[in-house]
Amino acid sequence: MPDMEVVTYRPKPQEYAWTFGGVRPVRTIRPGTVLQVWTEDAFGGRVRGPDDLVSRVIEFPFVNPLTGPFYVEGAAPGDTLAVHFVSITPSRDYAASSTIPFFGALTGTGPGHTATLQDPLDERIWMYEVDKANWTVTYQASRGDYRVALPMDPMHGTVGVAPAAFEARSSLVPDAHGGNMDTPEMRAGVTCYLGVNVEGALLSLGDGHCRQGEGESCGVAVEAAMDTVLIVDLVKGVGTPWPRLENDDYIMSTGSARPLEDAFRISQVDLVGWLTEQYGLEALDAYQLITQVGEAPVANVCDPNYTFVSKVRKRYLPQVAAYGGTHARLRELAAAYRAAAS
Amino acid sequence: MPDMEVVTYRPKPQEYAWTFGGVRPVRTIRPGTVLQVWTEDAFGGRVRGPDDLVSRVIEFPFVNPLTGPFYVEGAAPGDTLAVHFVSITPSRDYAASSTIPFFGALTGTGPGHTATLQDPLDERIWMYEVDKANWTVTYQASRGDYRVALPMDPMHGTVGVAPAAFEARSSLVPDAHGGNMDTPEMRAGVTCYLGVNVEGALLSLGDGHCRQGEGESCGVAVEAAMDTVLIVDLVKGVGTPWPRLENDDYIMSTGSARPLEDAFRISQVDLVGWLTEQYGLEALDAYQLITQVGEAPVANVCDPNYTFVSKVRKRYLPQVAAYGGTHARLRELAAAYRAAAS
Amino acid sequence: MPDMEVVTYRPKPQEYAWTFGGVRPVRTIRPGTVLQVWTEDAFGGRVRGPDDLVSRVIEFPFVNPLTGPFYVEGAAPGDTLAVHFVSITPSRDYAASSTIPFFGALTGTGPGHTATLQDPLDERIWMYEVDKANWTVTYQASRGDYRVALPMDPMHGTVGVAPAAFEARSSLVPDAHGGNMDTPEMRAGVTCYLGVNVEGALLSLGDGHCRQGEGESCGVAVEAAMDTVLIVDLVKGVGTPWPRLENDDYIMSTGSARPLEDAFRISQVDLVGWLTEQYGLEALDAYQLITQVGEAPVANVCDPNYTFVSKVRKRYLPQVAAYGGTHARLRELAAAYRAAAS
Amino acid sequence: MPDMEVVTYRPKPQEYAWTFGGVRPVRTIRPGTVLQVWTEDAFGGRVRGPDDLVSRVIEFPFVNPLTGPFYVEGAAPGDTLAVHFVSITPSRDYAASSTIPFFGALTGTGPGHTATLQDPLDERIWMYEVDKANWTVTYQASRGDYRVALPMDPMHGTVGVAPAAFEARSSLVPDAHGGNMDTPEMRAGVTCYLGVNVEGALLSLGDGHCRQGEGESCGVAVEAAMDTVLIVDLVKGVGTPWPRLENDDYIMSTGSARPLEDAFRISQVDLVGWLTEQYGLEALDAYQLITQVGEAPVANVCDPNYTFVSKVRKRYLPQVAAYGGTHARLRELAAAYRAAAS
Repeated sequence: MPDMEVVTYRPKPQEYAWTFGGVRPVRTIRPGTVLQVWTEDAFGGRVRGPDDLVSRVIEFPFVNPLTGPFYVEGAAPGDTLAVHFVSITPSRDYAASSTIPFFGALTGTGPGHTATLQDPLDERIWMYEVDKANWTVTYQASRGDYRVALPMDPMHGTVGVAPAAFEARSSLVPDAHGGNMDTPEMRAGVTCYLGVNVEGALLSLGDGHCRQGEGESCGVAVEAAMDTVLIVDLVKGVGTPWPRLENDDYIMSTGSARPLEDAFRISQVDLVGWLTEQYGLEALDAYQLITQVGEAPVANVCDPNYTFVSKVRKRYLPQVAAYGGTHARLRELAAAYRAAAS
Repeated sequence: MPDMEVVTYRPKPQEYAWTFGGVRPVRTIRPGTVLQVWTEDAFGGRVRGPDDLVSRVIEFPFVNPLTGPFYVEGAAPGDTLAVHFVSITPSRDYAASSTIPFFGALTGTGPGHTATLQDPLDERIWMYEVDKANWTVTYQASRGDYRVALPMDPMHGTVGVAPAAFEARSSLVPDAHGGNMDTPEMRAGVTCYLGVNVEGALLSLGDGHCRQGEGESCGVAVEAAMDTVLIVDLVKGVGTPWPRLENDDYIMSTGSARPLEDAFRISQVDLVGWLTEQYGLEALDAYQLITQVGEAPVANVCDPNYTFVSKVRKRYLPQVAAYGGTHARLRELAAAYRAAAS
Repeated sequence: MPDMEVVTYRPKPQEYAWTFGGVRPVRTIRPGTVLQVWTEDAFGGRVRGPDDLVSRVIEFPFVNPLTGPFYVEGAAPGDTLAVHFVSITPSRDYAASSTIPFFGALTGTGPGHTATLQDPLDERIWMYEVDKANWTVTYQASRGDYRVALPMDPMHGTVGVAPAAFEARSSLVPDAHGGNMDTPEMRAGVTCYLGVNVEGALLSLGDGHCRQGEGESCGVAVEAAMDTVLIVDLVKGVGTPWPRLENDDYIMSTGSARPLEDAFRISQVDLVGWLTEQYGLEALDAYQLITQVGEAPVANVCDPNYTFVSKVRKRYLPQVAAYGGTHARLRELAAAYRAAAS
Repeated sequence: MPDMEVVTYRPKPQEYAWTFGGVRPVRTIRPGTVLQVWTEDAFGGRVRGPDDLVSRVIEFPFVNPLTGPFYVEGAAPGDTLAVHFVSITPSRDYAASSTIPFFGALTGTGPGHTATLQDPLDERIWMYEVDKANWTVTYQASRGDYRVALPMDPMHGTVGVAPAAFEARSSLVPDAHGGNMDTPEMRAGVTCYLGVNVEGALLSLGDGHCRQGEGESCGVAVEAAMDTVLIVDLVKGVGTPWPRLENDDYIMSTGSARPLEDAFRISQVDLVGWLTEQYGLEALDAYQLITQVGEAPVANVCDPNYTFVSKVRKRYLPQVAAYGGTHARLRELAAAYRAAAS
C-alpha cells in the first residue's frame, strides 16, 4: 500500500470514550489514513446470554462505549470530515438484543421524555447466532419456537465528531455532530460527511449492529463488537451543517431532533440546501423534485433525538460530483486497500 | 367473466364527495365486485398550466374530490373491507404539482397547525408530461432548464370508509378510517384492509398520483385523474383497527397522527397486534423481530395527520395466510379479470 | 325582562347530540336570546358511585352528550357568534372523576395516538361531594383517608359550533370550531367568540366541570350536570378564525392541535392577529408585547387535540373595545337578566 | 450576620462560563453561604440601543454568559442543592429585547429544529426603560407610539448544575440539570432544588429578566444584568430527578423536552413522584388531585428544549414540610440577612 497510511487501533477498556467532546484524542492521524479499528458493542460486551439483563449488568452511564476520538491533522471549524467505510465485520459469533425498561418507541420513557405512570414492559434478552460464512444472524423467539435466519447487514449506529459551542454529548445522543444516529445506511461502501466544529475534528465511532430495522423500534438492534476499516479524509473550506452520506447510488442528508417531524424537516431542508449549493437547482425546484423522488427511511425513533435520513438517487439529479468527487476517490482508495490486503 | 360482477362508474362533477361519512352512497355493490372507476385529480381538474395557481383556481373546501361512496352489501361494524387494486392508469397526458401557501412539510402552516408569523413560500406550478408508452413522467425545473424523466408509479393518495362515532371527515384528512394517507404503497397489486364502522362501509377513493416521494414533502404529488380498477371484498367478523396493506411480499400497517412519532407508534403497535393475532407471535417477540427487520416508509408529513407505514417481509414471518388468504384470492380474481379484459 | 327573549331547554335523552355538525337543530333562537339550559355530565349521568367504572357503564361513542345544536337566526359564514356565560351551577349534589384505560396525559393512549405496548393504569372512580352553600367540592383519596375541600369554579369543557368543510366532529374533539377545549376559562362572566361556518352557526355545549386543573391531566375533571344561563349574540361581518374569550380583565385566544407546541403557536398567532386587527399594533410589536406580558394557561393535554389559551391583560393594551364592545354590552344584559330573575 | 458566611463575586469578562459542565469552578463555598453575585445579561451587555442587532454584535456561541460555577463543599451525586433567591435587582437603567432570525416560537427555526424554507422575520430591537423607584419597565412600540409601563418581576432564566453522564451543555439548553428553563417562577422568594450529578454540584446562573411572559414567545425576555443575592444549601441523601421549586404558597416541578407535551408530562410525573415520596399520597390519588387543582404555567416554547412548570398550592396538600423544611429555614436565613444588610 504505497500511498496509504494505515493505522490500527484497539482500545483498552479504560480508553473508551462515553461522550463526543470533552475527551482527549487517543491518536492523531493524517487525512487519507486507513483506520483499522475494533469497537466494543453497546452493552460494553456484558450481555453474553439471556440472563444478562441490561439493568443488572450495566451501570449507567457506562453504555455505548466509543472508540476514539481521533485527532485529524489540519481539520478546522468550517471544514468537512469525510469518513468512508471500507468494511464492517462482527468480531464474535454471537450478537444480542433486549428490551430495556422505559426505553424504546413503544413504551413510555423516563424520566427524560415521554414520562408516564405505567409499569415498564418486561425486560428480556434475545441472543442471535452470527454466521459469517452465510452472512446471517438467526432470530429465535423467546416464547414458542419460531426461528428465522436474517441477512446480515452490518452498520455503525454511532459515528460523530466533537460538537460545537463547547458542548460534550453522551454517546447515546444524535445531533448535528453526528453521534447515535442509528441509521442502517451507515454500512460498508458509504462515505459519511461530518462538519468540523473543533481543531482536529475528534472523530469517534461505535455501536455496531449486525442489522437493524428502520426506526430501531425497541431501542436495541442486533448489537455486536465490530472489526471495522474506514478511510478518514478532509475536505477543506467546505462546511456541512448536518451529517450527510453518499454511496454509489444515493446522496443522503440526516436530521436528528424531536418531535420526529423536525428530524424529517431538518434532513429535507439540508437536502434542499445540498442541491442548491452543489447541484445548481433553485430551492423550490429542489423541494419539488425531492417531493416526487425522495426516499426517507427513518433511522431511530428511540434515542434522545430521533433521526431521519432523506435521500435521492443520483440518477435523478444533474450530473455533478458532490464534495469535489470525494466519494469516488475514497472508493478507489478502498479498492486499493482491499487489493493490497488480500 | 363468468363469476365476476363488474360495475363501471364515472362521477358527474356534482356527484363528487368531499368527506368520508355524511354522504349518501352513489352505488350499492356486492362483495367480490370489480369496480371500474374514474377519479378526478386533487385539483378538481382545474390546474392545466403554470398560471393556474391553486389559490386562484380552487375554492376551499372544494379540493380533493372523491369518487364514491360505494355501499357494500352485508358490510357491518366489526367486519373488514378488502380493496384490491388491479390497475391505476393516468387518464390524461399531463399531471401537475404545486406549492400551496402555508401547506407542506417545509413551511409554517396555517392556521390550523404549525402557525408562524413568516411570509409564505412562493406559489408555483410544475406541469409534468405523462408518457404512458414509456411509463414515465417528466420533471422540468421552473428556473433553469434541468429536465428528467421519472419512472411512473401510479397510486391513490386517498382511500377510505366512513369513520366511526358519527363523524364526517374532510377528504384531506387521514385517520383510522383511511382517507388521505398519501402512501406510495397504495399501488396496483396491493390489497388494502379497512375496518368497517357503519353499515355498508361506504368506500370512497381519489387523489391519484403518477408518483410520489416518501413524505410528500411540499404537500402535492404528481397529481392526475385516474382510470382505476379495484376489487372490493368483505371479510366478515374480523376487525381491523387501522388501515393495513398486503402485497405479494409484504404485510403493512399504517398509522396517522401528529406528532409524527405517534403515527409511527400506531403503525408499529398495529403491526405487533397483527403478528400476535394472525401469526402466533407473542407481543414482545413481535416487537423484537420488527425492530430488526421492519421497514418504515413515511407516507405524508404534510396532511392534517401525518401517516407512517410499517412493513415486514412475509419471508421473515411464520408461514400464515393473513385474513384467511384474502390477498391471494383477490390476486387470482384480478388475473381472471385481466385475462377476460384482454 | 322587557328587552330580553328567554328560551329554556332541557334535552330529553334521545335529543343529545354527539357531534358538532351533522345534527339537526333542536331550537331556533334570535341573536340576543337568553338561553336557560341543562347539560348532562360527560358520563351521560351513569357514574354515580365508585363501582360505576367507565368501561363498564358507558358504551363508546355515547360519551360527552351535547345540549343543542341551536340555530341562530341570521348567522352566516364570516360572522362571529358571541356566547356570554351568565351562570353555571351544578345541578346535583355529587360530581365524579375517574381514570380511563389508555386515556389521559400520563399514560400511553390508544389506539389513536401515543400507542404503546404497556398495560393500562388502574381504572378507578373518585366521587366528589358538591356543597353549593360553601361553593366547594370535596376530594377524598381512594387509598388512605386524605380529604380536602376545594373551591368550586364551574365551567363548560365543551362549547362550539358546526365545523367548516362539511365535517362532523365528535364531541370529544376540540378544533377551530371550538368543541372539547376543556379550559377553566370557560366560566361565568366570560364571552366566547366563535367563527360561524354554516348558516345558523349551530351552537352546542356540554361537559360541565365543577373545577379543573390546567392540563386536565388524567383526562377527567370533576364532572357534573349543569344548569347554565348564557346569552347568545351575533357580530355580523367579523370573522374569528379560532375560538376567543373575553372577560372583564383579559382577552384570550385558543389553539387546539398536536403536538402541544402547535396549540401554543396557534393561540399566540391568533392573539397577534387580534392585536393587529382590532388594537392597531403592528405584528412584531404585538409579538414583543405578548412575549413580556402574555399568560398561557394550558387547557387540556389529554383530548384528541391539545388546547392552549394565550391571554393578555387589557390594561397593558391600547384602550379599545374588542368586537365593537360586545362583551360590555352582554355584561349589562346579564346584569339585567339577573336583576329580573331575582 | 453571626451565623452566615457571605461571599461576593463579580466575574471578569474572561471568567464567564458558556456551558454547564466542562468548566472549572470560580469559587468554593460551604452549604449555607449567602452569595452576592452579579450576572451579565444574555447579550453579553452588547445590546445598548436599537441598532445593536443581535446578528451584528454577538458572535455565536458567546451568548448567555453564566456566573459560576460554584463548587459546594460536600455536595455529591444523590444529594440535592437548595438555592434560595433572596433578591434579584436590575443593575442598569435599561433592558433590551429583540427578535432573532430563526429563533422563537412563532417562526421556523434553524437549522436545528423546525427547519423550513421560509425567510426569517424582521430583526429588531426593543429597548426598555428600567424604573427601579416605581419598579416598572416601559415598553415602547417600534412602529407607532404606543407605550405602557409594565410591573417589574425580576427572575433568572438560567440556573443549574453540571449535568450527568460527563456531558457539558450549552447555557442555552434546559434539561434535567436545570439550565435555561426561562420560567418566571425563578423570582426572589423561591427555593430551587437541583439534583447533584458531580462532586461539588457546580452551580451557575445568569440570564436575568426584568419580566417575562409565559412561553417567552419571541425567545427573548426583557434582558438585564442583575445584582442577585442567593443562599446555597445542601440536602444530603435526598435526590431530585428534575429541578423543583418551592415558595411560600406552592410546590412546583419542572420538565424540559420536545415536543411540549413531553415537558408537561415530565413535570406532572415528577410532581406525582414528589407527592408520593414526601406527602404520603398514592400515585393515582396524586394524579387525580393534580388533575383538579394543578396549575401549569408554560415557561419557554423557544429554547432547544421547551420547559413546563407544574405546581400545586400547599393548602390543598397534606401538611408536610418538603425536603425537611428547607424552604422555611432558608426564608428565615434570608430575613436575617436582609435585617443585617439594612
